[in-house]
Amino acid sequence: MSSSFQSIILKLQNFWADRGCLITQPYYTQVGAGTMNPNTFLRVLGPEPWNVAYVEPSVRPDDGRYGENPNRFQLHTQFQVILKPDNGNPQELYLDSLKALGIDPRQHDIRFVEDNWEQPAISAWGLGWEVWLDGQEITQFTYFQQMGGVALDPVSVEITYGLERILIALNNAKAIWNEEYGAGVTYGEIRRQEEFEHSKYYFETADVERIRKMYDLFSAEADACLAENLIVPAHDYVLKCSHMFNVLDTRGAISVAERQAFFRRMRELAKRVAESYSEQRKNLEYPLLKESGTRHQVSSNKPLVTKPQLPSHFILEIGVEELPASDVDSAYAFLESRISDFLNELHLDHKDIRIFTTPRRLTVSIDSLSPNQPDREEIVKGPPADKAFVGQIANLTYTQAAIGFAKKNNVDVKDLEVREQDGGKYVFAVVKQKGKPTPEVLQEAFPKLIESVKFEKSMRWNDSGVSFSRPIRWIVALLGETVIPFEYAGVVSGNLSRGLRPYGSPEIKIPSAEKYLDAIRESGIVLDKEERKNSIIEQVKQSASLVGGEAIIEDGLLNEVANLVEMPTAVMGAFNEEFLQLPRDVLISVMKKHQRYFPVQNKSQVISRKSDQTFDLQPSTLLPHFIAIRNGDDIGIDIVREGNEHVLGARFADANFFVREDVKLKLEEYRPKLATLTFHAKLGSMLDKSERVAKLVDEIAPMLSITSNQLPMTQRAAYLMKADLVTQMVTEMTSLQGIIGGEYALRSGEQKDVATAISEQYQTVPKTKIGLAIALADRIDSLVGLFAAGLAPTGAKDPFGLRRAAIGVVQPLIEHEAQFNLLEVIKKSAKTQPIEVTDETQKQILEFIAGRLSVVLKDLGYKHDQVEAILAEQSANPAACVWSLNQLSAWVKREDWQTILAAFARCARITRDQKQIFPIDEKLLVEKEEKDLFAEVKIISSQPFSVDGFLKTIVKLTPAINAFFDKVMVMAEDQKVKENRLGLLQRIVQKAEGVADFSKLEGF
Amino acid sequence: MSSSFQSIILKLQNFWADRGCLITQPYYTQVGAGTMNPNTFLRVLGPEPWNVAYVEPSVRPDDGRYGENPNRFQLHTQFQVILKPDNGNPQELYLDSLKALGIDPRQHDIRFVEDNWEQPAISAWGLGWEVWLDGQEITQFTYFQQMGGVALDPVSVEITYGLERILIALNNAKAIWNEEYGAGVTYGEIRRQEEFEHSKYYFETADVERIRKMYDLFSAEADACLAENLIVPAHDYVLKCSHMFNVLDTRGAISVAERQAFFRRMRELAKRVAESYSEQRKNLEYPLLKESGTRHQVSSNKPLVTKPQLPSHFILEIGVEELPASDVDSAYAFLESRISDFLNELHLDHKDIRIFTTPRRLTVSIDSLSPNQPDREEIVKGPPADKAFVGQIANLTYTQAAIGFAKKNNVDVKDLEVREQDGGKYVFAVVKQKGKPTPEVLQEAFPKLIESVKFEKSMRWNDSGVSFSRPIRWIVALLGETVIPFEYAGVVSGNLSRGLRPYGSPEIKIPSAEKYLDAIRESGIVLDKEERKNSIIEQVKQSASLVGGEAIIEDGLLNEVANLVEMPTAVMGAFNEEFLQLPRDVLISVMKKHQRYFPVQNKSQVISRKSDQTFDLQPSTLLPHFIAIRNGDDIGIDIVREGNEHVLGARFADANFFVREDVKLKLEEYRPKLATLTFHAKLGSMLDKSERVAKLVDEIAPMLSITSNQLPMTQRAAYLMKADLVTQMVTEMTSLQGIIGGEYALRSGEQKDVATAISEQYQTVPKTKIGLAIALADRIDSLVGLFAAGLAPTGAKDPFGLRRAAIGVVQPLIEHEAQFNLLEVIKKSAKTQPIEVTDETQKQILEFIAGRLSVVLKDLGYKHDQVEAILAEQSANPAACVWSLNQLSAWVKREDWQTILAAFARCARITRDQKQIFPIDEKLLVEKEEKDLFAEVKIISSQPFSVDGFLKTIVKLTPAINAFFDKVMVMAEDQKVKENRLGLLQRIVQKAEGVADFSKLEGF
Repeated sequence: MSSSFQSIILKLQNFWADRGCLITQPYYTQVGAGTMNPNTFLRVLGPEPWNVAYVEPSVRPDDGRYGENPNRFQLHTQFQVILKPDNGNPQELYLDSLKALGIDPRQHDIRFVEDNWEQPAISAWGLGWEVWLDGQEITQFTYFQQMGGVALDPVSVEITYGLERILIALNNAKAIWNEEYGAGVTYGEIRRQEEFEHSKYYFETADVERIRKMYDLFSAEADACLAENLIVPAHDYVLKCSHMFNVLDTRGAISVAERQAFFRRMRELAKRVAESYSEQRKNLEYPLLKESGTRHQVSSNKPLVTKPQLPSHFILEIGVEELPASDVDSAYAFLESRISDFLNELHLDHKDIRIFTTPRRLTVSIDSLSPNQPDREEIVKGPPADKAFVGQIANLTYTQAAIGFAKKNNVDVKDLEVREQDGGKYVFAVVKQKGKPTPEVLQEAFPKLIESVKFEKSMRWNDSGVSFSRPIRWIVALLGETVIPFEYAGVVSGNLSRGLRPYGSPEIKIPSAEKYLDAIRESGIVLDKEERKNSIIEQVKQSASLVGGEAIIEDGLLNEVANLVEMPTAVMGAFNEEFLQLPRDVLISVMKKHQRYFPVQNKSQVISRKSDQTFDLQPSTLLPHFIAIRNGDDIGIDIVREGNEHVLGARFADANFFVREDVKLKLEEYRPKLATLTFHAKLGSMLDKSERVAKLVDEIAPMLSITSNQLPMTQRAAYLMKADLVTQMVTEMTSLQGIIGGEYALRSGEQKDVATAISEQYQTVPKTKIGLAIALADRIDSLVGLFAAGLAPTGAKDPFGLRRAAIGVVQPLIEHEAQFNLLEVIKKSAKTQPIEVTDETQKQILEFIAGRLSVVLKDLGYKHDQVEAILAEQSANPAACVWSLNQLSAWVKREDWQTILAAFARCARITRDQKQIFPIDEKLLVEKEEKDLFAEVKIISSQPFSVDGFLKTIVKLTPAINAFFDKVMVMAEDQKVKENRLGLLQRIVQKAEGVADFSKLEGF
Repeated sequence: MSSSFQSIILKLQNFWADRGCLITQPYYTQVGAGTMNPNTFLRVLGPEPWNVAYVEPSVRPDDGRYGENPNRFQLHTQFQVILKPDNGNPQELYLDSLKALGIDPRQHDIRFVEDNWEQPAISAWGLGWEVWLDGQEITQFTYFQQMGGVALDPVSVEITYGLERILIALNNAKAIWNEEYGAGVTYGEIRRQEEFEHSKYYFETADVERIRKMYDLFSAEADACLAENLIVPAHDYVLKCSHMFNVLDTRGAISVAERQAFFRRMRELAKRVAESYSEQRKNLEYPLLKESGTRHQVSSNKPLVTKPQLPSHFILEIGVEELPASDVDSAYAFLESRISDFLNELHLDHKDIRIFTTPRRLTVSIDSLSPNQPDREEIVKGPPADKAFVGQIANLTYTQAAIGFAKKNNVDVKDLEVREQDGGKYVFAVVKQKGKPTPEVLQEAFPKLIESVKFEKSMRWNDSGVSFSRPIRWIVALLGETVIPFEYAGVVSGNLSRGLRPYGSPEIKIPSAEKYLDAIRESGIVLDKEERKNSIIEQVKQSASLVGGEAIIEDGLLNEVANLVEMPTAVMGAFNEEFLQLPRDVLISVMKKHQRYFPVQNKSQVISRKSDQTFDLQPSTLLPHFIAIRNGDDIGIDIVREGNEHVLGARFADANFFVREDVKLKLEEYRPKLATLTFHAKLGSMLDKSERVAKLVDEIAPMLSITSNQLPMTQRAAYLMKADLVTQMVTEMTSLQGIIGGEYALRSGEQKDVATAISEQYQTVPKTKIGLAIALADRIDSLVGLFAAGLAPTGAKDPFGLRRAAIGVVQPLIEHEAQFNLLEVIKKSAKTQPIEVTDETQKQILEFIAGRLSVVLKDLGYKHDQVEAILAEQSANPAACVWSLNQLSAWVKREDWQTILAAFARCARITRDQKQIFPIDEKLLVEKEEKDLFAEVKIISSQPFSVDGFLKTIVKLTPAINAFFDKVMVMAEDQKVKENRLGLLQRIVQKAEGVADFSKLEGF
């Protein structure tokens, strides 16, 4: 029997009410998520307990699809649960609630997929998961770490169900519309017309000027409330601001730069609300903190029952809630490198160490771990001998210092020995350490070991205050049959592991360490990652071959998927062939990034792909199939398949919707709308930027040897390059910017080279010259404009990605070996900017680019000193730098290099402090050696030199230089003679200008 | 065991879900009531069925009490149910839902108290009730008749539970704050701080300018949505406008005049939304109209089983849902006057007719109703005899006309008779009518009888389309033991009545009409209203005497209460003595108007009270007790008492809150705030008005013979008179304006006379001169200003109450016998107005006042012609009119009146068409009679006359006048002589100016 929407709500309300939650109501202001409701946003702050559940119809204007998408709407219905503090098994409670709804985990594929939740507009973050039901995200599950800028203690668990998607899954439906809402009325009958109207309103009708004014009024009113300490009213206006922002965003009226300002403002307000609330609750003495804070007490470790007598197998299994894929790897890497040292430091003998990691367990397996530390001696240095004894040599007595030292080291004072060390005499104690039993040693050492496992992001969850990637829920620590008892993060170690999630994580009693691997294997878990990978590859290949295709198996995806499951089972599904008309990149991106599916393509037309070459204008060779990897066995596999097919269908329908809407206009027709996108308040709209870039391209083209044939295409590409930013597809999937532009260019009848260039513009190194030209113009325009607007990166902050832009200038110039004059281009760009770009700023920009160039060059293997030497003179031309470095590094490797460098150095050092360049008066040349040198200098070419050219000249001059310095007194008493000689040397040194600053070289 | 707030919600959701309702969610925009949610506002439109239930947290800013009131808050939680169409027993369903919550109707007093719901802002109305639980309003129950200006078909039943109050009642609590919300947390812990903050925001912090701007923006956005036919988004903005309006109102920033404009605008938007939605659903072909319209089929009347043979007792009982008290009376009056005629028209003999009415039944009892109509003859006139026959006199044959006539009347053509009538000969048919059995006659006649019962407001409820005061749910129609079977409004008559509401309205089988009264009495119902009244009086008196007091029993209240119950039982309760410090009028007003309680006062200090003298500055003699009348017996009477005590306590706490807040400032300090209250856009603020009135009072005072001692107090009273309009107490209970001003004036240390005058200002006739002066100034200022602004009343429309103002000018002048010159005062007021008041307008104003004066005078018993005669000359001085009318009416009663009037008339008629006044040249007097008349005329006083003076003069002149007309030819051929004679008569007629226009008198 199929479920109704309202029955889900009623069941969840009853479920959570029965489990001690308050049941409250949706908020009376449009919110993007239940998190914004004060029952979450405010109540998670501070120490008071709070358990609540409520429905929240959540409004996300840009998710509007005019009622055409099966599961995406501007309004979706969340069911929000907050558990504060963590009750110890929130995941199990959650899975129980799904069972209460009729979702049997054995019939479905339920997964906890990493989700680092972050809401910058309210300065909040947390770690947790999206919960997937057969590939469909049905819930967000988060351990809140911070809200409104305030760190949370205790941490709250937030469970946010997506009710529409749950109904779809429950009823195995393709779309929500024909499913029952309740009382025999369908969801569509109630909401579809309204969905259409709101979508149209948000995308087309909302008046941008009026909405902006509303935002300003709300924002001012929030300030007024805060000034009076009216926290909930203030919060309400912050929410209204947020909604207005979302509407503006949906109307495409907010640029990247403006977005920052909006977020800053909203974040500031949210922080003030959170801080004021925290203060208020404190002043009210936390009325809900009814029981006296029974904070967690660490229980004392249990005594050991038995101690093994012989070397035994050892197992440590840390059982966790699902780890992010990358954390599975980093934990593996850490343990792999650490355990051996760890055991050595503990003086514990052992044989093979093996590490296993899955999303739910980190296992250390050690063969033949010694039951004891060996007994050992340690020599401890004490006070100097003369401080240790007093009295006659025949009748020495121990001083207090000696007695204290002996006592401290637990030896008899008479056993102290006198030895020489570092030329002095000291007393030494020979400390005999009795080896401790291994369990005792490990008991003490394990907490520190686990603590030392670090992750890129970690979280707290309970009052132990411990941080880890995700909560630790059990620990197995067995030496043979003996449990090593310790407690960490509120968990006491034991011999109970847990089984597969889809089987309900049943307890698995591990009788002994030796039997661990078998027990785990028997429970269906594939502990070894390589084994999981191989299994996936095999299953995926086999599945693909069933439809005569070949799976696209990228290493990254394979690795990730292997870290998402403990028991991989491939499920192949199909999608509607009509979607194959979508750009190939869109299809792959959706399957891979969003769904972690392996795409399937026609066997005969495999196209090799490198990571940075994700664009291909070839007609797609994809087949309408995908392969998902389920966690678990094949029970209910058809339900799982259908569920995944519905999800992918909905996602493709979404993309299709955008593309269909978008191609109603030609790409060119989008360009004027760039006027509504602010690039930056001081720098105008994206249309203004686009026009500057088009001008700059005209200047750049000749430098890149673009032919007169190519020029019109280059100009056309520059003209159109940003137009896709205002298409719906790019608004939706920003990562496809450029790619979509290229696709749409082709569909609009533009030339292929134009389309290709557009599609390449965001690649670090565009392949084509036209792509290179427009990318460079775009990046240089950004650098020049934003620096002039005072937005140069500072410290770690680089909100506009200017470091990446600078790399995007130098890297392609190097790879294309394009001779270029950055300074000149910066100057030209400066002239096109709407604000003044001072010479000083231009210099800063060049220095900034040079800084990036320096990094790039060092990454290419060039030596630091050589890079610095070349950059000092040639930083404006990155390709030339590489050419010069190649020459210079060859010179430095020559055996006579020190001689050559020394000859130049003699000239350079003596002249470098001179403030002026002295003329040479031939008549003032006195000595033969200076006349000889002058004769040589006179015939040096007046042309600019390459490194090779210059150094060859120095080689040629070296004898004359050395003779000159050996015989001639440069610093003559006669001022004129002295200046004449300095002038002569300056002629030589000057020639290095534009080549390199050799003084920066090692050995100078 | 006490209930929790959330358990009530969960139970109601489950209850209504089980009864086929959709369960939806609160709306995501602040609404004042669940009615505004589109699931009500839109879905009740059109023919589609719709059954829905949802929670709606409802925001009413001006109900904010900073969390200090036990049951009044700016946010209260509604549970809204819509049943469309009416399912036939919505009240029973509702009462079942209360049982599901644990409210046993036998333990409580549950009442359905008339409530004519109207929401002008959305052009909606309906009829129904407030449901009272032990005196507490816990639910609104309405049959919607119109929404957004669209008439509803079918009608929807709306049930709106007030959840906070239900929880208070369920837990027999004094206040909501310490009751459990759920999960061990109290309502106060969750909401009280927030309640404080929002109250403060709405009353103090909200920025009026910004809120106005928001209103304008929302309003413009609503227009934009409507232009695109985006109905739900438009509705959303209408709701936002409405909330902004409420905030402005709470800030005291909206004047009466502005309010109208706001309402107009919101109404217009709401109508457009409703109309567009109706259109849209029609175009969609009403998707929810799934079953083919099974509209109600009128079932054919059942055949009679037995027919009585002898005169029998007859009973008709129309069983209804609770009627409004006034409808109980009007139905009584109608039936009382109608039934006898009704039976006569039906030719049915009978003896005594008695009518009984209660809130739930209208009963007609007839003694000895004949079982049959008598047989009877009727003479029907046919065609003229000469058209009826053709042929020779001896051989007449019938024409077709005659044959047709005979056939039509069902007589043999040969039986036609020829008779004379009106001087012509016609054929006549003697139609013999066989008397029908009474049941047959009544069966046909009753539907029409019931249809003819009219009410001030009536409603439809089901698809019969019938209108009645409230739904008809059963009909008893018994002649002896025989049911008279008919159907009306979808109800089939029978012999089943229903018992008392608190007993669950059990079915009562009425064995025969004779036994009806006993059966009803046995069921506990007091059918006779006088009996109910007497019972109430007796119980109330007895109760009051228990506390040594005396109940204040006003007829109006007694009558109303007697119409609210079928079984009256008095319940005496007490309230906190501290509330006795509140103004007596506030206390009485709350008890009487809001709660229908009888107040109790100290026996020794009874003060007589007339309806228009509701103000008394004597210290209150009230006792802290009240007497409520419960419907039902005394089971659970203590619960009922406590419930009523809590309700009254909360209401007094509310008043106390206002008074306490208000008296923090002196009355004088409120005056400047009048600047924020717009009187009218063209006429400035209430402060501006107040200043004009103060000026005008200076002019008026001398006319009212105000002494120089009184003058400063008069000025002070005028200065302060409007200040209370911006106090919270008056904002809350507008009916107490003036009274509160007086009270606060005393508390602010003003002189008693000043306070009294302020308190009297809204009485039609203030008792004191000072009160009179300021009231007149106020009313005249309104009349002058608003007429000048073009807002004179038109037709039935009088939004500013100018008719009442005009009556309030003339009535007190009459009662105070104050000589006054209205024209002069209007002129003076005109000079103070900010806009031009033309002479024409001033004349209109005077005419308008005269129109009211005319009505007042006729109401006083003066004859129409005399009133018109006096008003024609003295309308500017109402008191003088009365004085003059008294004299005139005495004259008219004289026996010689016709002679006196005739004498004057002779002078007046002949001169009245003359365009000019002719001089008298004594030398041109020829005849003796004209010389004599002239001699008499010469000595008439030149002083203005009274009616008496003038008519005495006429009496004196009469012989001379008559002699003059008998002998002298006025219209002489000599023009000069003629004009001289006319001039002489004109002197006489002129003297009537300023006295009366005697030509308007009867007999002139």
